[in-house]
Amino acid sequence: MIILGIDPGTATTGYGFVRETDRGSLQVIDYGVIETPAKMPMEKRLQSLFHQLTDLILLYQPEFGAVEKLFFHKNVTTAMSVGQARGVIMLALAEAGIEVAEYTPLEIKQAVTGYGSAEKKQIQHMVQALLGLEEFPKPDDAADALAVAICFLHRYRIDRLSKL
Amino acid sequence: MIILGIDPGTATTGYGFVRETDRGSLQVIDYGVIETPAKMPMEKRLQSLFHQLTDLILLYQPEFGAVEKLFFHKNVTTAMSVGQARGVIMLALAEAGIEVAEYTPLEIKQAVTGYGSAEKKQIQHMVQALLGLEEFPKPDDAADALAVAICFLHRYRIDRLSKL
Repeated sequence: MIILGIDPGTATTGYGFVRETDRGSLQVIDYGVIETPAKMPMEKRLQSLFHQLTDLILLYQPEFGAVEKLFFHKNVTTAMSVGQARGVIMLALAEAGIEVAEYTPLEIKQAVTGYGSAEKKQIQHMVQALLGLEEFPKPDDAADALAVAICFLHRYRIDRLSKL
Repeated sequence: MIILGIDPGTATTGYGFVRETDRGSLQVIDYGVIETPAKMPMEKRLQSLFHQLTDLILLYQPEFGAVEKLFFHKNVTTAMSVGQARGVIMLALAEAGIEVAEYTPLEIKQAVTGYGSAEKKQIQHMVQALLGLEEFPKPDDAADALAVAICFLHRYRIDRLSKL
């Protein structure tokens, strides 16, 4: 089963494709960031994000998508801008017939490190350890996207166990 | 020339198609709202919005799109949600090769009524008068969308005149 985790943004959207093997271990398939140039008109940036993400979805065919949910941006302009990116990201997933789960940063931290007040560095450490990576996944937005995918798989396992 | 004005929202997006005739008068082609059911998963709602809007764009073939730009939502959750709707709306326009202009509520009020502190009722009156409608355009979101289209045409004329 392949999960696509996403950390949305207009300038930079992090993505991470993670596979759960039949033996239950986690494997990274690919991760990185989708960037759009600041000079481009907003609608073109969103279009570029949409098509780059759609290409990745077609390439790796994930079964589920998981997107970071942010409610607490102090800056409303930022919230609007992140919202626009989230909109086209969720649309790209829906167009590919993929269900989308949404998690708050708190839920992601808890799933990845076991507690909600973990710092960025600790999260990156855990992401690296859980995925057996030789290095810190970089940049930050890509590491965050991998954390979102891990969060999904963590919760999915709990759901599965609770149904046994 | 046909303009598509849009007042974005996840639950309700207002739209208004306005034509400027060769003699310079404004004519309504169509207006209304696109609604998505609250019970649907968000990605499906955004998908529904995207396809309904795309159908309207294909039907009326506007030359420009104009979208209300909101920066001042007190509620950040609302800003995020409106942002998501704006994202897919701008994508739908970009996919159809249509340039998008964005206006703040202040700019829209000034263009439609001549001053920035106009009340909703006054804007609706002016929209009705400018478009020669027999009744108030309803619901509010559709009236707002028509106001956005009028704002675009108003500014477009000024630009054109300033280039003479």
